[in-house]
Amino acid sequence: MANNFRYYSPTEVIFGKDAELETGKQLKRLGASHVLLVYGGNSARRLGLLDKARKILEEEDISISELGGIVPNPRLDKVYEGIRIGKEDKVDFLLAIGGGSVIDTAKAIAYGLAEPEYDVWELFRHTRTAKKCLPVASILTIAAAGSETSKGCVITNEKTGEKRAYDDNLARPKFAVMNPEYTKTLPDYQTESGCVDIMMHTMERYFTNGGNMEITDSIAEALLRTVMANAIILHDNPCNYDARCEIMWAGSLAHNDLTGCGNDGGDFMSHKLEHEMGGMFDVTHGAGLAAIWPSWARYVCRDCLPRFVRFARNVMGVTSEGTDIEIAEAGIHAMEQFYHRIGMPVNMRELGIKPSDHQILDMANRCMAACKNRTGSAKKLTLEDAVEIYKNAR
Amino acid sequence: MANNFRYYSPTEVIFGKDAELETGKQLKRLGASHVLLVYGGNSARRLGLLDKARKILEEEDISISELGGIVPNPRLDKVYEGIRIGKEDKVDFLLAIGGGSVIDTAKAIAYGLAEPEYDVWELFRHTRTAKKCLPVASILTIAAAGSETSKGCVITNEKTGEKRAYDDNLARPKFAVMNPEYTKTLPDYQTESGCVDIMMHTMERYFTNGGNMEITDSIAEALLRTVMANAIILHDNPCNYDARCEIMWAGSLAHNDLTGCGNDGGDFMSHKLEHEMGGMFDVTHGAGLAAIWPSWARYVCRDCLPRFVRFARNVMGVTSEGTDIEIAEAGIHAMEQFYHRIGMPVNMRELGIKPSDHQILDMANRCMAACKNRTGSAKKLTLEDAVEIYKNAR
Repeated sequence: MANNFRYYSPTEVIFGKDAELETGKQLKRLGASHVLLVYGGNSARRLGLLDKARKILEEEDISISELGGIVPNPRLDKVYEGIRIGKEDKVDFLLAIGGGSVIDTAKAIAYGLAEPEYDVWELFRHTRTAKKCLPVASILTIAAAGSETSKGCVITNEKTGEKRAYDDNLARPKFAVMNPEYTKTLPDYQTESGCVDIMMHTMERYFTNGGNMEITDSIAEALLRTVMANAIILHDNPCNYDARCEIMWAGSLAHNDLTGCGNDGGDFMSHKLEHEMGGMFDVTHGAGLAAIWPSWARYVCRDCLPRFVRFARNVMGVTSEGTDIEIAEAGIHAMEQFYHRIGMPVNMRELGIKPSDHQILDMANRCMAACKNRTGSAKKLTLEDAVEIYKNAR
Repeated sequence: MANNFRYYSPTEVIFGKDAELETGKQLKRLGASHVLLVYGGNSARRLGLLDKARKILEEEDISISELGGIVPNPRLDKVYEGIRIGKEDKVDFLLAIGGGSVIDTAKAIAYGLAEPEYDVWELFRHTRTAKKCLPVASILTIAAAGSETSKGCVITNEKTGEKRAYDDNLARPKFAVMNPEYTKTLPDYQTESGCVDIMMHTMERYFTNGGNMEITDSIAEALLRTVMANAIILHDNPCNYDARCEIMWAGSLAHNDLTGCGNDGGDFMSHKLEHEMGGMFDVTHGAGLAAIWPSWARYVCRDCLPRFVRFARNVMGVTSEGTDIEIAEAGIHAMEQFYHRIGMPVNMRELGIKPSDHQILDMANRCMAACKNRTGSAKKLTLEDAVEIYKNAR
């Protein structure tokens, strides 16, 4: 049964070799006059992208301000810093050079600059809804978060340890420059974490009990199989350009909502459980997802069995006979084998963290507070369920 | 090998039951103050959509002008009539209620109103490029052409018999209202022709020799299999809502460029050969495509064999062993069987037309003239090739 849905993915994708050369013309066309460049640590500099961007923008007579030093699990203090710079310099467009953390920081700054009378963190606490947002675009250097085309934005409040999401179409980027060449030099662990994150964005929309469409499911399965095949290619040969293309484009399609059309909004509890791990331990997001997913999947699969069986057959290639629960379990086990094949963990021990019972209760409590009433579709989780899933993943 | 590409599909899709009720709010949000309603013959009226739209727009204090009577293979004289009305009434937004013909007419009028100093037909003769276009949206009642999210627009000059396309992102609709309920009462022949057209939009992008991406191919294959399965369901039970959903959403995804990302721009010669049949004989577009495709496919498949083999295996489910050419041929034959299964023709005789040799030469000449140098990717066709393909389809 298909649910009503809205699909809105207006980001213009400029994909391929030398795509970054289009950035200046594109910004000019969209009326940018003073751009805040947002970037991370060394990679934008090392790749030469920062100098390239400065030069390209100068050629179009676009003024530049800069905010560097964005870290993974990006922090609220940098958002505030960006808002301060943006106000002072009268920034009218944000250009992120980096991955999801950098783009999310740019989005949060864009919200803050569009409505400077409010504290932007209110959005992430869900005590206010945004009415405006400055335009954002990106030159993407990491295939993972899908923030380059998504409405999502995740920021960590380093004072409270809260990692919180705010979703709004207002922040959908105007354009995304994607040159897969720039992802070739990523550390393997980042590439592989990215692949897990990409798959999880689609799996979160796939494991639902509230309706679905065949076209969405079959596209999701096609995407998941493609990412798995190409993640293995990249694990063995990080410089394969075509595999980089497949993963990079999959990263956008996995999270621009295409793979959720007609479903009930998805489950997203693996993400939310991981957010608390990320808030407490600062783990790499994709690796954290790999560490929590098998525990989540085994805990909920009886409540969402037809989907887990379909997943085992159509994505993981399980051909063995057996009861539905055996087939579902074989699919989960095959996913663990895939995670290991690309060097990813399948539990918290392999991830390198060992939360105490107290810490687990703390994470579970925070997770439930952040979820409000939306605690899953494959299975609606309680606090006790969350505690069990964390413990089983330990 | 992946080619560089741009992907831009900004249309907001509002999908499902009662979706049309959002139309007024959406128009208001986008600043519409005087809307030209464009529609066809009886269906918009019979479905009650015309009265509904008038009422919804009035509730938002949006003024209305109207242009009815758009026919399949929509005609240039109606475009001129719409431009005249639009100028007089100071129209600032176009709302099409109908299928591809109605939406394409609205797009052409929108070009004409945005640059009234030129003759809009110049765009279709490719002697001028559009710089502006008024905003267009639709309430879709036929799943087929994909015009609701595409950049394409096809108009027939009834004086010269030319059916010509103009493609530009400027005309991508702002939003598309898709309530599959409204497609339930379509005549079967229209439903099935629509399914053929939808598949062909993706197949035209699939049969290429100039590079491709695995994720694009596998999404294309997922879409084609889904359309085939649901076309058969609708042939037997036209009122199946879920199947209507699958087909309607597939229609947009098949032609919003998603299924061409990373390829070389596609082949599109089946479409262009059919355009001349449509210009000369006024056949239903999808049925015309079904009548020409097998002849085209057999003529070119040796020049694009790996793609035809993959298509046979992954889309048509051919499992038999044999040489590549035998497998490709089995795939083409299976497509003919599918066309017959849903009541579609596989040649011109079954379509009900019998062009003379002279008429075939005339169509081939017009086709080549319209194509300029872009005469295919699976195989680059010459005039002689086009004549042969028409003759073999007779």
